[in-house]
Amino acid sequence: MTQTRAEKDSMGTIEVPSDKYWGAQTQRSLGNFDIGRDTFVWGRSMIRALGTLKKSTALANAELSELPQDVADLVTQAADEVIKGDLDEHFPLVVFQTGSGTQSNMNSNEVISNRGIEIAGGEMGTKAPVHPNDHVNRGQSSNDTFPTAMHIAIVLDLNERLYPSVKQLRDTFDAKAKEYADIVMVGRTHLQDATPVTLGQVIAGWVAQMDFALEAVRHADERARELAIGGTAVGTGLNAHPKFGALTAAKISGETGYDFTQAENLFAALSAHDALVEVSASLRTLAGALMKIANDVRWYASGPRNGIGELAIPENEPGSSIMPGKVNPTQAEAMTMVATRVFGNDATVGFAGSQGNFQLNVYKPVMAHAVLESIRLIADSCVSFDTNCAVGIEPVTEVIEGNLERNLMVVTALNRHIGYDKAAAIAKKAHKEGTSLREAAVASGDISGEDFDAWVVPADMTHPSAG
Amino acid sequence: MTQTRAEKDSMGTIEVPSDKYWGAQTQRSLGNFDIGRDTFVWGRSMIRALGTLKKSTALANAELSELPQDVADLVTQAADEVIKGDLDEHFPLVVFQTGSGTQSNMNSNEVISNRGIEIAGGEMGTKAPVHPNDHVNRGQSSNDTFPTAMHIAIVLDLNERLYPSVKQLRDTFDAKAKEYADIVMVGRTHLQDATPVTLGQVIAGWVAQMDFALEAVRHADERARELAIGGTAVGTGLNAHPKFGALTAAKISGETGYDFTQAENLFAALSAHDALVEVSASLRTLAGALMKIANDVRWYASGPRNGIGELAIPENEPGSSIMPGKVNPTQAEAMTMVATRVFGNDATVGFAGSQGNFQLNVYKPVMAHAVLESIRLIADSCVSFDTNCAVGIEPVTEVIEGNLERNLMVVTALNRHIGYDKAAAIAKKAHKEGTSLREAAVASGDISGEDFDAWVVPADMTHPSAG
Amino acid sequence: MTQTRAEKDSMGTIEVPSDKYWGAQTQRSLGNFDIGRDTFVWGRSMIRALGTLKKSTALANAELSELPQDVADLVTQAADEVIKGDLDEHFPLVVFQTGSGTQSNMNSNEVISNRGIEIAGGEMGTKAPVHPNDHVNRGQSSNDTFPTAMHIAIVLDLNERLYPSVKQLRDTFDAKAKEYADIVMVGRTHLQDATPVTLGQVIAGWVAQMDFALEAVRHADERARELAIGGTAVGTGLNAHPKFGALTAAKISGETGYDFTQAENLFAALSAHDALVEVSASLRTLAGALMKIANDVRWYASGPRNGIGELAIPENEPGSSIMPGKVNPTQAEAMTMVATRVFGNDATVGFAGSQGNFQLNVYKPVMAHAVLESIRLIADSCVSFDTNCAVGIEPVTEVIEGNLERNLMVVTALNRHIGYDKAAAIAKKAHKEGTSLREAAVASGDISGEDFDAWVVPADMTHPSAG
Amino acid sequence: MTQTRAEKDSMGTIEVPSDKYWGAQTQRSLGNFDIGRDTFVWGRSMIRALGTLKKSTALANAELSELPQDVADLVTQAADEVIKGDLDEHFPLVVFQTGSGTQSNMNSNEVISNRGIEIAGGEMGTKAPVHPNDHVNRGQSSNDTFPTAMHIAIVLDLNERLYPSVKQLRDTFDAKAKEYADIVMVGRTHLQDATPVTLGQVIAGWVAQMDFALEAVRHADERARELAIGGTAVGTGLNAHPKFGALTAAKISGETGYDFTQAENLFAALSAHDALVEVSASLRTLAGALMKIANDVRWYASGPRNGIGELAIPENEPGSSIMPGKVNPTQAEAMTMVATRVFGNDATVGFAGSQGNFQLNVYKPVMAHAVLESIRLIADSCVSFDTNCAVGIEPVTEVIEGNLERNLMVVTALNRHIGYDKAAAIAKKAHKEGTSLREAAVASGDISGEDFDAWVVPADMTHPSAG
Repeated sequence: MTQTRAEKDSMGTIEVPSDKYWGAQTQRSLGNFDIGRDTFVWGRSMIRALGTLKKSTALANAELSELPQDVADLVTQAADEVIKGDLDEHFPLVVFQTGSGTQSNMNSNEVISNRGIEIAGGEMGTKAPVHPNDHVNRGQSSNDTFPTAMHIAIVLDLNERLYPSVKQLRDTFDAKAKEYADIVMVGRTHLQDATPVTLGQVIAGWVAQMDFALEAVRHADERARELAIGGTAVGTGLNAHPKFGALTAAKISGETGYDFTQAENLFAALSAHDALVEVSASLRTLAGALMKIANDVRWYASGPRNGIGELAIPENEPGSSIMPGKVNPTQAEAMTMVATRVFGNDATVGFAGSQGNFQLNVYKPVMAHAVLESIRLIADSCVSFDTNCAVGIEPVTEVIEGNLERNLMVVTALNRHIGYDKAAAIAKKAHKEGTSLREAAVASGDISGEDFDAWVVPADMTHPSAG
Repeated sequence: MTQTRAEKDSMGTIEVPSDKYWGAQTQRSLGNFDIGRDTFVWGRSMIRALGTLKKSTALANAELSELPQDVADLVTQAADEVIKGDLDEHFPLVVFQTGSGTQSNMNSNEVISNRGIEIAGGEMGTKAPVHPNDHVNRGQSSNDTFPTAMHIAIVLDLNERLYPSVKQLRDTFDAKAKEYADIVMVGRTHLQDATPVTLGQVIAGWVAQMDFALEAVRHADERARELAIGGTAVGTGLNAHPKFGALTAAKISGETGYDFTQAENLFAALSAHDALVEVSASLRTLAGALMKIANDVRWYASGPRNGIGELAIPENEPGSSIMPGKVNPTQAEAMTMVATRVFGNDATVGFAGSQGNFQLNVYKPVMAHAVLESIRLIADSCVSFDTNCAVGIEPVTEVIEGNLERNLMVVTALNRHIGYDKAAAIAKKAHKEGTSLREAAVASGDISGEDFDAWVVPADMTHPSAG
Repeated sequence: MTQTRAEKDSMGTIEVPSDKYWGAQTQRSLGNFDIGRDTFVWGRSMIRALGTLKKSTALANAELSELPQDVADLVTQAADEVIKGDLDEHFPLVVFQTGSGTQSNMNSNEVISNRGIEIAGGEMGTKAPVHPNDHVNRGQSSNDTFPTAMHIAIVLDLNERLYPSVKQLRDTFDAKAKEYADIVMVGRTHLQDATPVTLGQVIAGWVAQMDFALEAVRHADERARELAIGGTAVGTGLNAHPKFGALTAAKISGETGYDFTQAENLFAALSAHDALVEVSASLRTLAGALMKIANDVRWYASGPRNGIGELAIPENEPGSSIMPGKVNPTQAEAMTMVATRVFGNDATVGFAGSQGNFQLNVYKPVMAHAVLESIRLIADSCVSFDTNCAVGIEPVTEVIEGNLERNLMVVTALNRHIGYDKAAAIAKKAHKEGTSLREAAVASGDISGEDFDAWVVPADMTHPSAG
Repeated sequence: MTQTRAEKDSMGTIEVPSDKYWGAQTQRSLGNFDIGRDTFVWGRSMIRALGTLKKSTALANAELSELPQDVADLVTQAADEVIKGDLDEHFPLVVFQTGSGTQSNMNSNEVISNRGIEIAGGEMGTKAPVHPNDHVNRGQSSNDTFPTAMHIAIVLDLNERLYPSVKQLRDTFDAKAKEYADIVMVGRTHLQDATPVTLGQVIAGWVAQMDFALEAVRHADERARELAIGGTAVGTGLNAHPKFGALTAAKISGETGYDFTQAENLFAALSAHDALVEVSASLRTLAGALMKIANDVRWYASGPRNGIGELAIPENEPGSSIMPGKVNPTQAEAMTMVATRVFGNDATVGFAGSQGNFQLNVYKPVMAHAVLESIRLIADSCVSFDTNCAVGIEPVTEVIEGNLERNLMVVTALNRHIGYDKAAAIAKKAHKEGTSLREAAVASGDISGEDFDAWVVPADMTHPSAG
């Protein structure tokens, strides 16, 4: 049987496992919210953010003489352990709890209080010398701390997880764009043969799309640097020192190395989480870009004999449990599945973000969780796609060249010389008769073979040609 | 200058154009809701439904002695004109109005009242002998009439527009499935070459997907046959005769030829529109199926020389303003664009459907409009796709046969004879060395040429082969 | 250092931990797909479904003489352990893998093969006497087995998790609807005071909405009973005995106690998963209904002094880390957060469901996962909401009665006696002058106090009143 | 019978109404795409953008000696008429056409060609002296012109429609925030009574949320200033003068007064429209903010007697067809319905944006249309909400004061003096016994009446209070 100790809150006393630092409110939440327990317990990102926040508030409160230095020291010492990950098992709550994240805020207050008490040699549960509300939560409310922690977690995960992972894939493509700058291939629009491009241009287009999306994410990241801290219960800052919010933001900046500030309007910062809606939307843009790119990769690699087959991708595993020897674009599939998940998460975030009332939006946990999940999935899948697919992408030269040779759309180069209408007639003739474009062109009488050879040079068609 | 007459409601008097039948409340709404005027004015479907409803309520009220017969006659006569479409110009209101549709309900009450007065030789605006509230709206509230009209409009549009249009496309495919039952072609999974199928099987799969979705739509259609009528303001039926709702539903059935009934629970029928959420979801399923089918068509028709090119589709227009002779799968593009729109409409409907409070959901108009738009777009695009593309789809036999011949995945037929592992080795060998599968098989020593020829018969691979 | 053994597949040899039953392909997937590892590993539902499937296929194959009885016995014995949950740790793969679920299918083949070998006293990794492909996967492809397992998992979770949990909440409401059938309260439309309803009617409306949604889920459940099994790689059934699919479906029915059949069209069953799209959509409808209900509960319970306050809900935990004594509707918040998550999951499923190409949809795992997550979350939150909130909901009689007394909208009862226009004037007068409706009515001269008392009886207004 | 003339394109000759300027390709599209005709015909915004584009390309081509000056003059003269709106009836095509917008690009080429010919005294349909492809479309492809026109239309509508309309509402709120800076009222979190705020703070929070969203829109607007022009068919710029794209962008800037540039990467600019995805997402953020605000307004105005009732809103129309005297928050309802529509449009845009293949995204028209619709609806509804509701919002002082007086959550001010635990006990006591907080505080013995009066001052609680 588990040993327990009594913990108390404003509703009374409740038994808590002796080997856990959490207190009464965490224990109540454990019993009251058994929803998705196996997969929806908060993970490292939010726990670290809560630790970072609580350390920073203690530092700020001490500096403002709102907390005795010795209590502040106990809080920061315990919070450091939370930050490092030593106390993760003491954060058992799930996402689907109170919509302000009160219970997770109290979880951090309780754990830090009891661990602080333990460090001081006191008795856990006595709330002395470190009180979860009066000290750890000093000048705070869940309504401002939880969104502050959400923002910290997301900004850190963007910077530490997302950007490096996406950049890894982006840089692989960038290098390949340069490597394959001179490989001329058939362009395709409407899935139909079109005028030539280089493989380098194709891949550079992917890079540009990723860069565009990354810029959007970074812009949203900037907006998420504004923190609700200092707003306390309803945005007014009641019970907080007037300088507390700004100073805490500065402490968080110091602790994390990323610039945070207090939000200009704290009422909006509690009752809406539009910065998260923006972060989520930018992740959707990125996911949409990755979907396009992954789709291109698998279509270019389709075949091996009856598809387009212009790119080769690595064989990582047997493709089929029944068709021997089959190799499938599995990394592209994982990537596009991630994209659909990110789209779904974004739908959740957008919906939840619109549902605030009065001074509070009570969808904070589900929003934070969905954004963190999207970050995680995009980051992981970019690394996976890069390592197991992108680095090994190679042109299949003979297919590329064969296709290019058969392509009728190089006829477009003739527009400038004989006009659209005659050029169209030549292309149609070649298509109908199954001949080469050159044969049809010469047969048309509109152009000589020499002119054709001079004018229709696929490589020349991969850049502006007029003037 | 427009001539006007004075119309009056509980807020006072307002001038209305003399040549319009509408009254004070419609006029107020015109001034108060200038939102999306050019494209969001209610169209035929809702106007006809309102006319149908008002006629049916008058018949029911007369039968229950709740309306004098002569007044009822005037109402039904005017309502018949609304049904026929003669008075469409007198319904000028937009979707984005009061969320219960009150103003459109009053629009129909006012038009029918004034037209009835006119028929009776009275003076418009006097509300006698036909009062918009006391007579035309007898035993009704916008809260039950508007959702009733929504359901009528949607059920009728499903039956008169959607089913015939979708069926037209489905039947074309069904005929082609039979016509091409014996054309054996390469199967493709993960965009990679796979074991053979017949073109008939491919197309039959499309038909099955459409049939599945249609069944879903028809099931939702059944649910939408339940009407809110008789609930009046909050679901209690206050001021309506106890038999009014059921009898009106019967009159609507008689008028339209489709079976409608009064909803079992009228509180749910006013405060939620989950039947529309279901209709919308089923349209999304249908749109998803059409997207898959249209994508298949354009990929099969990709090329003409550098794509898959196994199907030919009609050339309906020049494909490019710059590339002469290009033919694009434009009907497939229109179809898939419609699909994305239907998905968006469904997002609107699902969101709006969740936002009821207490005894009313005040997103009725936007829900009805989005569902009607989805019905319309799917119907139109199915006819367009059928007429301009599907009927003309043809196999490109030489491409199909050439691809089939090169396909390595027919190796799967060997599993049963030599096991998966040896079969895999043969396929890999052929792929690596660029030989035919037969050459690799014989070279492997695991199988003779005779056995290969007996066991690897693509046409035999298009149906269960074991046992 | 972990001890390993060599396992082999068509790509070569790879080391696998000795204490794990999985083989080469699972091991490769582990290395190749490190995406969302902490939360996206398949859980009990899919593992049990794979075990159920593999047992059933072995039984069917044995009966059809496609597998030697002794091999089939080993497979079923190992599969039984998978079903029971004894081998869960041997299923380490994540959702974001190959889009056909091939690696999870192979995971089950490999685990069952090696466990079968072990039971037979053989050497793991030798594939004898139980070969993962030739025996465990006999007559199967991932392309038909994985969607079959998806359907089994979802149907079982719907029946074993969702229905009982939702029913628990529904039955609580149903009992309360009866208990409070006679409590007359203010109705509210547009958030504005409206004609009276009983609390029983309000709650019965919630029950009706849940029943409606459940019917939609059950209809989709029926569609999900159709299984892809027997289609093998592309839908043709190549390498499967002609009776294999139908017989396996029968075996699955026997094993689970739920009726399953082979899908009529196996091409559609592999290339689309519209039954899951429908299941997901019906869960969205249910989530939307729960959102409406949870919103009603928290609005009715808003206050305690400055809100509507007509219902009391249980106090489960301190509501605020800063505001002492505050009690919040936390169960309603968890429920509505779940609703937004289910909406997001549905967006994922709908999107993914539209993205099939040719003979395969390669978004199977993400679709299955999202549907299973939605089922789980709705089930958990219904139980949580029921236990911790719904059972304790009680009317606050004095507030309800006070509100009812002040309500002006009972004026509606006068429509039938003095007409809408005069009734409107009375209500406006009372509102403007801040008097009771009776005072205004009598002052209007249109009606006597006796008539007012006879005609305006709130309880009488909660049912049809005419006739 | 309509008179016709023969028009010709690469597919042959077709009859066109004599009184229309369009040519063969427009005519074909009219016949081939009869989808959503009544509401999906392109409107002013896109037509003006096409005119602006064609004028600018002519100016650029002339300057680069790619067009004879006289031909360029004819083009610009005709294009000016398109810009002004004189030729709107000659643009009959619908959104659901070819996915590159080819037919609308050709529509503009044909109309400008024929109108130019007419101005020059030539014969329409002869393509001389102004050829639709060789002159009007000089150096262009639909693939770069249509997305360029999309961007122009959207940027102009954002700047000319959206910003002024949203600003109008925002400024009304801003003024009210200042006007009501001193009205202290109950704060509400979790729909429960919370610590006080001022009405000015509440409304300032709305303004801040709008400003946040507007910043997001403006950021996306910046990204949309990058144009695809100069990419021609596949992004390479084939057939365009090397300086054509940049120069055209400059001409467009001159013509419109907004700064546009050529996109850095033209391959991305054709194959993806992520700038539109971003614009759409930012509009969703704005719509979400407006939903929150409109919800707050209607909840604050709920009642009149049985709701919160702290704000009064204008009475614009009779609220109910059955309940006399009812006034509903109809502008809020229209606003939130618009929000759900914008969410749906955004779902469409995000989905469509992810579906590019190779060198082209063929969902251009549906994306452009959805974004333009969202802009239009938000703009219209902001003006409508402002004019008909926001300007008339007023506090209901006696309700606000009465609520404030009853509020228990002012207890929070005691935390700093007697600690959270004792403060909680006082609040609970008052709640349980139905007394005032002061009575309970004094009865607790923890605090004197004098201290209570000094410490619990609602107005003091509306700003940071510590330090």
